[in-house]
Amino acid sequence: MKGDWGMSRFRLGVARVGERYDAIVVGAGPAGLTAALYLARYNVKTVVVSKDLGGNMAIAPLVDDYPGIPEVPGAKLADMFVNHVKKYGVPIIVGDPVTSVKREGDMWCIETESGRRICAYVVILAIGAEKRKLNVPGEDRFVGKGVSYCATCDGPLFKDKVVAVVGGGNSALTSALYLASIARKVYLIHRRDSFKAFPVYVEKVKSNPKIELVLNSIVTEILGDKKVTGIRVRNVDTGEERVIDVDGVFIEIGSEPPKDFLKSIGLELDEEGYIAVNPDMSTNLPGIFACGDVAGGKYAYRFEQIITAAAEGAIAADAAYKYLLKIRSAKTEESRG
Amino acid sequence: MKGDWGMSRFRLGVARVGERYDAIVVGAGPAGLTAALYLARYNVKTVVVSKDLGGNMAIAPLVDDYPGIPEVPGAKLADMFVNHVKKYGVPIIVGDPVTSVKREGDMWCIETESGRRICAYVVILAIGAEKRKLNVPGEDRFVGKGVSYCATCDGPLFKDKVVAVVGGGNSALTSALYLASIARKVYLIHRRDSFKAFPVYVEKVKSNPKIELVLNSIVTEILGDKKVTGIRVRNVDTGEERVIDVDGVFIEIGSEPPKDFLKSIGLELDEEGYIAVNPDMSTNLPGIFACGDVAGGKYAYRFEQIITAAAEGAIAADAAYKYLLKIRSAKTEESRG
Repeated sequence: MKGDWGMSRFRLGVARVGERYDAIVVGAGPAGLTAALYLARYNVKTVVVSKDLGGNMAIAPLVDDYPGIPEVPGAKLADMFVNHVKKYGVPIIVGDPVTSVKREGDMWCIETESGRRICAYVVILAIGAEKRKLNVPGEDRFVGKGVSYCATCDGPLFKDKVVAVVGGGNSALTSALYLASIARKVYLIHRRDSFKAFPVYVEKVKSNPKIELVLNSIVTEILGDKKVTGIRVRNVDTGEERVIDVDGVFIEIGSEPPKDFLKSIGLELDEEGYIAVNPDMSTNLPGIFACGDVAGGKYAYRFEQIITAAAEGAIAADAAYKYLLKIRSAKTEESRG
Repeated sequence: MKGDWGMSRFRLGVARVGERYDAIVVGAGPAGLTAALYLARYNVKTVVVSKDLGGNMAIAPLVDDYPGIPEVPGAKLADMFVNHVKKYGVPIIVGDPVTSVKREGDMWCIETESGRRICAYVVILAIGAEKRKLNVPGEDRFVGKGVSYCATCDGPLFKDKVVAVVGGGNSALTSALYLASIARKVYLIHRRDSFKAFPVYVEKVKSNPKIELVLNSIVTEILGDKKVTGIRVRNVDTGEERVIDVDGVFIEIGSEPPKDFLKSIGLELDEEGYIAVNPDMSTNLPGIFACGDVAGGKYAYRFEQIITAAAEGAIAADAAYKYLLKIRSAKTEESRG
């Protein structure tokens, strides 16, 4: 009895008319897939629509921080998530990015790049956030071969090696400190001569003998053959260029949520442009929930990990299920009245 | 360079003097084990102390809601978590419950039932909460053989079967509604004639033709042979007893955090006795973090799932790591002054 979730007498809108569901999950990273898994387990008629499969998880070279599954290639872990969702028969539409989310009557309707249109009472946004890139030669080529956007994830691979961290904020500095406890040496490359990180991190970075500061400098190229062997760095004051030999480059210059898209929906965003969610992952718009890297606000602990994204997906699904029970009840009243 | 975490010049208190660590994780369910995994990955010198291994996860007959690992016995999943932590060389002390947590100078010191004493700058409490039991004959015997304390977890095993739900709160009623979408019939047994759940759930339960209310009634015995076959129910008004044939019994009468123990530490608790945590899992006591089923308060979405407990453990570890960086910095200042 799919799409029934404990309410067998009144099934308004449950029957499939064109593409109509109870819930649409947008995004198929760990957050979206877990939301779909939980919704399916609650017998909520659900569809997943995504531009890709697995999100950032799928492109991680090696994941060792998803508890219970040590040292698994990200692509394999993504497959495991996808198969778990497929077991429950949830359709997953891939390669078709969602271009709009609009209120229509008592439903939310999405449109995709290919012109597909799907409506549902609930939309769970799990569309992630793009890591900011340096946009220099060699960067894309060496992702997973020395170039990383997550020290917490990939740091342990660089034991006793030499690495560079690029950035000047909290995540760059805590990454440098963490990597200094693993790697032999850490270069911290920052385009200014001061940091916007907490003073405590700045002090610790400056007093750590393993960390060498390379200030007023930008990376202009990532060098290597099969994997990273060095970086070309330019001093922005003098214009001087030099090559620093490194085994790895950690690019920690933040993430970029799709602000314009989120604003077009009418969502309340936090200062950095992430969706402001409540502890139950609900947003300012009734029926829209958010989870994973796109979720933020004062209640969210932004950590960008697979395990936290997945948990937020589970919470969003549970809250969405309760929301569906509530609106279904209101509909029942209407049909009685 | 264990116990260094990016601060190699000053190592006050890092050296092991007797049993001294940087962090103590109390509890070895999914929250505690994930906290330990993340702390170990941050090179924080960590020990896990627990009364048991795996927590409630280990006694679940079959887990199908931990994304990526379908249909796994709880005991096996617990092993997978434990092995992942052991890979990082974290010592796990099992079978020795913690009896006190006290501030001593700049550290927190725990004592265990066997008299062991361990001190650290950080304590992460992941001690879970006991599901409330009916305490009737047959209950313990049939756990995992028809008796369940989690409809979200075990519901899918009862497709087209007959089940009973015991309780009158939100979790009992949402469990009954959910199970009605899976099972053939659901008896809802409640000792009073009214419910303390949200009206929306009460309405839906009452209007669901698959749910039969058995009010003013208590379960006095769970019957069965190899697995549950029925329950003996007594009407508290008339004293009349009868047997209802069921394949499963879902006991949804809440959880019980160890309030007295938590109060003895000086922790701020929420109305139900769970530890009031901030979004980063910190508590009112600096250096003490809480995660998993024991954590509550207005920022926590209490869901009692493996995936959410694990995520909270990861967050607690990340926040604890940042806390350690900060206090280490303060110590550095002292030693300079």
